[in-house]
Amino acid sequence: MAAKDLCAVRHYFDWAASAPFDNDIINQINNQAVFGNPSSQHSEGKAAKLALEDARTRCAKVLNVPPETLFFTSGGTESNSIALFSNLVKKGQGRIISSAAEHSSIREGMETLEKMGKPTGRIAVDSEGRITPDILAKTLDKYGEVRFASCMAVNNETGAVTDIASLSDVIRKRSGAPVHFHCDLVQAIGKIPVDITGWQIDSASFSAHKTGGPRGIGLLYLRRPSSGNDIFYTGGGQENGVRGGTENTHGALCLASCLEKYATAETVNTEYARSLSRWNKLITSLAAFERCTLIPKQRAIKDAQDRFSPYILQAAFKNIPGEVMARALDDLGFAVSTGSACSSSSPERPVLIAMGVEENLRIEGIRISQGYTTTDEDIGLLIEAIAEVLKFL
Amino acid sequence: MAAKDLCAVRHYFDWAASAPFDNDIINQINNQAVFGNPSSQHSEGKAAKLALEDARTRCAKVLNVPPETLFFTSGGTESNSIALFSNLVKKGQGRIISSAAEHSSIREGMETLEKMGKPTGRIAVDSEGRITPDILAKTLDKYGEVRFASCMAVNNETGAVTDIASLSDVIRKRSGAPVHFHCDLVQAIGKIPVDITGWQIDSASFSAHKTGGPRGIGLLYLRRPSSGNDIFYTGGGQENGVRGGTENTHGALCLASCLEKYATAETVNTEYARSLSRWNKLITSLAAFERCTLIPKQRAIKDAQDRFSPYILQAAFKNIPGEVMARALDDLGFAVSTGSACSSSSPERPVLIAMGVEENLRIEGIRISQGYTTTDEDIGLLIEAIAEVLKFL
Repeated sequence: MAAKDLCAVRHYFDWAASAPFDNDIINQINNQAVFGNPSSQHSEGKAAKLALEDARTRCAKVLNVPPETLFFTSGGTESNSIALFSNLVKKGQGRIISSAAEHSSIREGMETLEKMGKPTGRIAVDSEGRITPDILAKTLDKYGEVRFASCMAVNNETGAVTDIASLSDVIRKRSGAPVHFHCDLVQAIGKIPVDITGWQIDSASFSAHKTGGPRGIGLLYLRRPSSGNDIFYTGGGQENGVRGGTENTHGALCLASCLEKYATAETVNTEYARSLSRWNKLITSLAAFERCTLIPKQRAIKDAQDRFSPYILQAAFKNIPGEVMARALDDLGFAVSTGSACSSSSPERPVLIAMGVEENLRIEGIRISQGYTTTDEDIGLLIEAIAEVLKFL
Repeated sequence: MAAKDLCAVRHYFDWAASAPFDNDIINQINNQAVFGNPSSQHSEGKAAKLALEDARTRCAKVLNVPPETLFFTSGGTESNSIALFSNLVKKGQGRIISSAAEHSSIREGMETLEKMGKPTGRIAVDSEGRITPDILAKTLDKYGEVRFASCMAVNNETGAVTDIASLSDVIRKRSGAPVHFHCDLVQAIGKIPVDITGWQIDSASFSAHKTGGPRGIGLLYLRRPSSGNDIFYTGGGQENGVRGGTENTHGALCLASCLEKYATAETVNTEYARSLSRWNKLITSLAAFERCTLIPKQRAIKDAQDRFSPYILQAAFKNIPGEVMARALDDLGFAVSTGSACSSSSPERPVLIAMGVEENLRIEGIRISQGYTTTDEDIGLLIEAIAEVLKFL
């Protein structure tokens, strides 16, 4: 493991798995000033509690929601699981449904709910990996009583952006018992404009480490904080009973700084434009390779760009298995992945299967994802590297 | 919040809630070298994976267990919950029992299991807050079929040390279906000698932040790693399916360093002797105050010292509610608590109730806890401060 070797000559294109740490943020926090346990009543505890609430308020300001709707967790996976498992203790009946293209933390959670005897269901995705209002409406009709629906905003494998507001409309206009609408915003926050309140979502998940923050810290948004009464496991009662365990104050402060630095409307729009420009260059160049197929194929159409996040791209290269391509690029100094890191223990590509992608493309697919420090030069070098690999494989 | 004010003139006696950060450990790790997602297959991912496995191996060496029995979690609360909730998916019947003096993470978890319809039960504690082999044997007889028993090694409110080996003997010698024996070792590790293998425990919990490490990282030990198949929620399948979510590599490396620095047999013994000497001084001085009652009273007897951790002490001062005493000491620069920080949202003192402590003493009880950097001078000043408070209250 040569830390130095990884720095200077590497080109990192796996931001969707984890972003490089933004040490300006991580190192700016004075750990020692907030070491107290925020639940303690002495000065050290109160200082930590103040810092924690300051972090919450700052996150709330960026996300434009009341601070009391935000709960610090250990990350996106835990936020998703807290929301999902509230169905184990919440009163009421009805099916729990999720998109067929969700992150593994939701997918595995759905399996847990099934094991516990809860009725579940899947919402199909279109060939771009997206739930449309029409698909959602049909799914709700099909299942009848539905209590909980989970849809991610930006697909972590293809970058497909789901129009959450229009799905919310479908849910809100429906008669009958209300449906709890949960959104995994892990790949959306700091990347595309997010409007939690306007979208009328009931709960949402966030993670710090996709935007330069440390590991082990995330957020859960609960529109009705009183729904915290329906939490499966309260632990020590921290975070208003929503998430037990001594609060990670340092992590919370870092997360707040990440949101302030990367997730304000202004920054998101500026960075979006920059990313899109780089991505258009990448997409045009990839489309020019005869052996390259973008997944989904519509991604190559210029008009389709606003339906995808300009931070994530899935592409297949004819007769080169994705893992071979990823290894070849890695040897040349480029980090790309073959899919979600969180599903890397499984060779299946459930998201691509849900989209109806043919088997050979699923095997050949690689995910390229960029971030704030990616440059035009990086893109140019990546294209050169791919051309190089294509010569020999 | 004045960080500087809290440093120079403060005397911190709430280590059991959270230890001051050991920045020699936290700052030594090169974050940037291990920012990759350990589940990714590229060089950055592999470097992070190597670091994570290095951390696991180092923890395993200190704890004297195979590395594959250790799983990184977000902390003690989560480790306890993973062990407890395996009972929701594990085959087999039988009652799930826990000591009546467990940490709130176990106590609340037991309530969750009850809500889910699982049969549970409590193991009474003696007047020192401890489970004895005799009590355990009688409890097992009373309940008949028992599948899971949870006993903490060091009580987080009184410091009572339970003889885990002797409890294990009771469990192992019992005929019938095996009982899974879980130990919360959060207040034990780095404080008293711990022998996971010798004690024949099936699972155990650890947290980094009680021994100088950062928040948001802990360990779960599973004697039979294959029992990881019985995990309630696997998330993204990380940590062999035992704990989902992108791995906190930096935290894991810090935890490994904490264990190496504070939890080797040699350090534990040296620090234990130093702590005991300071604690004996404190206990002698407190016992000399007419208005002071140690909880339990036996704590004042010199021979009783090896039945208690020399890091935690509970004491009551006649006619001074614990929170008033804690506030008065805080004003004088001393941080003590009125009980477990994790139970601070509840005014009840369930651990003291379980021990049969009278109501007035429960109200008056404060917890004093020390750590590696506590000095004889700190102890002397604390005694002076208590004397000062007693003059006016």
